[in-house]
Amino acid sequence: MEIVSPDTEVDVIRIEKGPTSIETFHDEAFSIPEVLKLVNKFKTQYDAIIINCFGDPGVHAARELANIPIIGPGATSMHVAALLGHKFAVISIMKNAGPWTEMQARETGLEGKLAYAVGIDIPVLELEANENRTVEEIIKEGKKAIEEYKAEVIVLGCCGMIRVAKTIETRLKVPVIEPVATSLAVAEALVRTGLKHSRAHLYMYPNLSKIMRYKQ
Amino acid sequence: MEIVSPDTEVDVIRIEKGPTSIETFHDEAFSIPEVLKLVNKFKTQYDAIIINCFGDPGVHAARELANIPIIGPGATSMHVAALLGHKFAVISIMKNAGPWTEMQARETGLEGKLAYAVGIDIPVLELEANENRTVEEIIKEGKKAIEEYKAEVIVLGCCGMIRVAKTIETRLKVPVIEPVATSLAVAEALVRTGLKHSRAHLYMYPNLSKIMRYKQ
Amino acid sequence: MEIVSPDTEVDVIRIEKGPTSIETFHDEAFSIPEVLKLVNKFKTQYDAIIINCFGDPGVHAARELANIPIIGPGATSMHVAALLGHKFAVISIMKNAGPWTEMQARETGLEGKLAYAVGIDIPVLELEANENRTVEEIIKEGKKAIEEYKAEVIVLGCCGMIRVAKTIETRLKVPVIEPVATSLAVAEALVRTGLKHSRAHLYMYPNLSKIMRYKQ
Amino acid sequence: MEIVSPDTEVDVIRIEKGPTSIETFHDEAFSIPEVLKLVNKFKTQYDAIIINCFGDPGVHAARELANIPIIGPGATSMHVAALLGHKFAVISIMKNAGPWTEMQARETGLEGKLAYAVGIDIPVLELEANENRTVEEIIKEGKKAIEEYKAEVIVLGCCGMIRVAKTIETRLKVPVIEPVATSLAVAEALVRTGLKHSRAHLYMYPNLSKIMRYKQ
Amino acid sequence: MEIVSPDTEVDVIRIEKGPTSIETFHDEAFSIPEVLKLVNKFKTQYDAIIINCFGDPGVHAARELANIPIIGPGATSMHVAALLGHKFAVISIMKNAGPWTEMQARETGLEGKLAYAVGIDIPVLELEANENRTVEEIIKEGKKAIEEYKAEVIVLGCCGMIRVAKTIETRLKVPVIEPVATSLAVAEALVRTGLKHSRAHLYMYPNLSKIMRYKQ
Amino acid sequence: MEIVSPDTEVDVIRIEKGPTSIETFHDEAFSIPEVLKLVNKFKTQYDAIIINCFGDPGVHAARELANIPIIGPGATSMHVAALLGHKFAVISIMKNAGPWTEMQARETGLEGKLAYAVGIDIPVLELEANENRTVEEIIKEGKKAIEEYKAEVIVLGCCGMIRVAKTIETRLKVPVIEPVATSLAVAEALVRTGLKHSRAHLYMYPNLSKIMRYKQ
Repeated sequence: MEIVSPDTEVDVIRIEKGPTSIETFHDEAFSIPEVLKLVNKFKTQYDAIIINCFGDPGVHAARELANIPIIGPGATSMHVAALLGHKFAVISIMKNAGPWTEMQARETGLEGKLAYAVGIDIPVLELEANENRTVEEIIKEGKKAIEEYKAEVIVLGCCGMIRVAKTIETRLKVPVIEPVATSLAVAEALVRTGLKHSRAHLYMYPNLSKIMRYKQ
Repeated sequence: MEIVSPDTEVDVIRIEKGPTSIETFHDEAFSIPEVLKLVNKFKTQYDAIIINCFGDPGVHAARELANIPIIGPGATSMHVAALLGHKFAVISIMKNAGPWTEMQARETGLEGKLAYAVGIDIPVLELEANENRTVEEIIKEGKKAIEEYKAEVIVLGCCGMIRVAKTIETRLKVPVIEPVATSLAVAEALVRTGLKHSRAHLYMYPNLSKIMRYKQ
Repeated sequence: MEIVSPDTEVDVIRIEKGPTSIETFHDEAFSIPEVLKLVNKFKTQYDAIIINCFGDPGVHAARELANIPIIGPGATSMHVAALLGHKFAVISIMKNAGPWTEMQARETGLEGKLAYAVGIDIPVLELEANENRTVEEIIKEGKKAIEEYKAEVIVLGCCGMIRVAKTIETRLKVPVIEPVATSLAVAEALVRTGLKHSRAHLYMYPNLSKIMRYKQ
Repeated sequence: MEIVSPDTEVDVIRIEKGPTSIETFHDEAFSIPEVLKLVNKFKTQYDAIIINCFGDPGVHAARELANIPIIGPGATSMHVAALLGHKFAVISIMKNAGPWTEMQARETGLEGKLAYAVGIDIPVLELEANENRTVEEIIKEGKKAIEEYKAEVIVLGCCGMIRVAKTIETRLKVPVIEPVATSLAVAEALVRTGLKHSRAHLYMYPNLSKIMRYKQ
Repeated sequence: MEIVSPDTEVDVIRIEKGPTSIETFHDEAFSIPEVLKLVNKFKTQYDAIIINCFGDPGVHAARELANIPIIGPGATSMHVAALLGHKFAVISIMKNAGPWTEMQARETGLEGKLAYAVGIDIPVLELEANENRTVEEIIKEGKKAIEEYKAEVIVLGCCGMIRVAKTIETRLKVPVIEPVATSLAVAEALVRTGLKHSRAHLYMYPNLSKIMRYKQ
Repeated sequence: MEIVSPDTEVDVIRIEKGPTSIETFHDEAFSIPEVLKLVNKFKTQYDAIIINCFGDPGVHAARELANIPIIGPGATSMHVAALLGHKFAVISIMKNAGPWTEMQARETGLEGKLAYAVGIDIPVLELEANENRTVEEIIKEGKKAIEEYKAEVIVLGCCGMIRVAKTIETRLKVPVIEPVATSLAVAEALVRTGLKHSRAHLYMYPNLSKIMRYKQ
């Protein structure tokens, strides 16, 4: 069975400027305007948009712009993880990933379900080049998460870990959430049920003409 | 678009003994052994099982029995609601629904996202017979939830409210989570991504021969 | 001084069918209808009923049935423990005891007081046969709880650990809550002060005639 | 049945200096040294000591001094209330009682169970002189607590409300915790089970000779 | 006495592009790169930098760039408010301010101290033009915060409310936190004590050369 | 730059009776009446008062007495620490410091930001005599706090650690909060901005004539 159903199509669109990867708040800050320009451009051409980074950059602003589901892989993965066991762990990339993930968990309301959060200290763009080391570091932290911190589910905290996900799951013998696949499946679930974000309080319609001297 | 994709089939199976509806802990207690007998019987014939009651009766024991996704509509609906706005409300049936839902929210870890929980005081089996009154009571509580308690998403806290869901959403103008449809979509998402509950800590394999003098 | 005062009598009544011990959610599920049948039968003959398992099986449904104090040894022991020190630990039986106890602590509202929860991986019915091993495992985890996790009070998380309680307390030199004795003393305290559970919101009166094809 | 069992005796001892009642932090501050002098004097003559004020003045310092149960009526009443329903309210005396009670609930770990806390704005020493007004004010706030804030149990937040407790319970039709009776019953329960506060971490043995120029 | 001491100088520097005011996540997203360019340019010329918007836009990324205190007026005002009373309220501008402030409070760890958060629905750039209406709306919500939600301190949730702050304080008779003055005073306090943000875990040094096709 | 600005003067006033240092709740209890007598005597002669002990003895009662800022070094240091990183640790003196600090953190609402709390088991009056051992013990626990518990900021949990603060900061390479300096800087910030504690709910005006047989 495929991750998306036979009647679903997926396109991948890249930002044209901005950071080559997102590892710091600074990287994230420079990615968001570019993400938003794409969301604004494509918001009527798709049924849902996934912002393909675990840090969910610009997800709130994108929801202000669009009336289709905007999927943040971080929040989505954590909610799915919470459905599969008592507590989950997030294993991510840089050393700032521990506290940053805790901040994300607090924002989603799931801090009570987060057993452990850690980075393996391998930059995003080297994850695949060092696939062996990537796998071994994730396994090491995964075992610690399961045995010491009693995590039941491992969330891969980076959208660039897709190639190693199955290996990790086979070796750790617990559910492993790969955020890209999970985001696709949840996006489809939302579209099928006709659900999208609320406009009641948090998400207003932004006034694009207020942004001075930016080309949208 | 249908709630399930073209390659998914859904069967509905009813318990043979037990309560005619679940409105009290007592009702729930007598439903669970029957639910578990069905889960045990069908666990190798399906890709996922939804226990079709918002109170998620027997979901933990069913996960002990089965190695396929076991969906509790209550926990599932609350996690999806948390993805769509800052806070959600649950509108359910009897007057005990307020504190009972708060207990469920604490179990899922989402108590910080629950703005309001209430029952409309109409028994499950009368929801459809009094469809007008059912709608008006839900609308009244829904408006209170949105305006006073700042809920952004309304969760219908009973699997017997499916007929009124669209009307409620049209009138309240916020996302309305209908738990049966949401459970079907999430069940499919889990099956597509190959995810199911963890066996690391909480869910052991039960020994059925320990249950004295019950016919399984 | 005895655990109960001179004017109190205690009877022990066993369920007639169901699990020989409760170690999984599945065991618990099959015990609850039997517990409820006994509660319903005896609810007017006693001043209070203790449901003698740390998992508090059926305590909410029993309160729906009865207008006398229904004591759950788990919740009761945790509240008493919270009165005796800053944080407590619960040492229980199987490996699922860690997360299960955390779920119980969340339900009681005491998760902030729970320093550590663990199972010693000895089945209930072997606790007494292996009394030495039982003691040594509890001591090992108890020391860890006190030294590493800063627990001040140890709660024995099983009603079958009564024979080893004094030994544990003598060796660990902190208060040890034995749930059966604690439940008896609290039951008496509630009866003396005329207190029982509220009927305001959570506990409705169940309609027994709704349970189809069960002999009550 | 009496609140204490036939083999229990109760003595009442008053402080010799200090505030005539405790309504502010300032009152409390000047009561504590006097309470501690009495605890130190009588700690070997009794099986347990209740510090008879809902604010639990000096309870931590008293536990440092004594190796018998030291009962704080505030914390004790809140833990018993939590055993009897989903949420409780505390109705106390002055207008500072709302936030002060919330501080106490946070200290006990029970803030998640506190539905509502309020003072009726009648000084302690006028509670009995204005018994009618005392009753009516408590009833008014009690109804608000039950209907608006969904409290299931009412805790009387002052040890001087003992005369009105039964009237309040009869009229509000929910369990009403009177802190003096509850403290007596819990004190007896602790003595019978041989439990007292832990010496593991929080409660050290104080060095009385460090207190310069005070007569102990 | 002045808000800053005699030996402190304050300069105001404006972003050159981006939103004319910040009222949505979208506005914020387009302000942050401009804020960061200024922080990077001036980080060695000042002893501390205040990012003058209550939403604290870019504060985390700015701390990655700079080794001087970076003050976010929102988090700073909430921590100072927490020092002055049991609970505080934040009164801000647009209707999205309620949930947005709750998100900020969760990030600072102060959600338990936030009694109420609301927007008065007057855009930033009209606050001064409609000074009378601004004052009356803040007073109306302030009274509600104090009387109904038991707030003790009012935080003005916008850096453009400086002109009305004294009037509000005089009329509400509780401490009113004006975020610009508070940020200046706390900035000076941090500089005097030699404190700045930690580099231990969360704040790494960003690699500016990773940002493709942006002029820094 | 000095910790206080050129136009600020600081006086140190000592209590005349009571404990020689505060290491237990008992010590604290006997210090508070003396602290309050001084606060009452000097409350109109100063712009702000710091109660110079990390346990913040009598801070709430002092605020009832005085209409100037009353600074508790413990709460103040924890709020400043929370501004400088994701989580902080408190390293204090006796072994009871761990749970006692956790109680303080809960009172300030900052328990979610406290990574670790511990005492080094050196009495207050020996901190300076054993300066070397003091430093080494703090370094040992500080490293544990940073590496194992992911603290970003170290708070010195005693006002008698002022001499070693700089050494600790130099060696640990994270911000170290020395509570006396921090209290001075925050006191000045409050005075400059005209802020003091609220009189809305928690802090009433105490009636000093109620304190029988004490010389004020």
